[in-house]
Amino acid sequence: MSAEKLSHDDILRAIAHLEGWAIVEGKLHKDFKFDNFIKAFGFMSQVAILAEKMEHHPEWSNVYNKVTIDLTTHDADGISQKDLDLAKQINEL
Amino acid sequence: MSAEKLSHDDILRAIAHLEGWAIVEGKLHKDFKFDNFIKAFGFMSQVAILAEKMEHHPEWSNVYNKVTIDLTTHDADGISQKDLDLAKQINEL
Repeated sequence: MSAEKLSHDDILRAIAHLEGWAIVEGKLHKDFKFDNFIKAFGFMSQVAILAEKMEHHPEWSNVYNKVTIDLTTHDADGISQKDLDLAKQINEL
Repeated sequence: MSAEKLSHDDILRAIAHLEGWAIVEGKLHKDFKFDNFIKAFGFMSQVAILAEKMEHHPEWSNVYNKVTIDLTTHDADGISQKDLDLAKQINEL
């Protein structure tokens, strides 16, 4: 159930409560900026453990103090509840 | 000195000894593939500590078991000895 693709309206309704997340190229997207690399990678380490625990992994990149995260559910060919759940947990870090 | 942009020939000569690295879009590039996310992120954690220690950080991305690394020296506006040194240390992990 949780891996079903959500409608555009459902996603917009959900991300209204998820600060900083937007739909970009069909994926749930957020850019993060930290003071330095140690803090950026510290954040990534937290997200990595969360993601592995949830068995749902981000597409993400890092350049020094910047981290970009894109969430999508390949099995659903779009954004699913899993992506919203992971986004919410990332925001709560 | 180490942050000076190297010539294309110098880079080609150097990467002949750096397995898997190539010049892609003006950056030193390598794709890595692991058995799973835990191993991929474990590798990234090792690279992160190396990079911070060398005060030279990668541009990189990860999707599940895949890690892509691009090395460039912004101050030099190109590939410098720092990139070659980091690439070498990454290969030695």
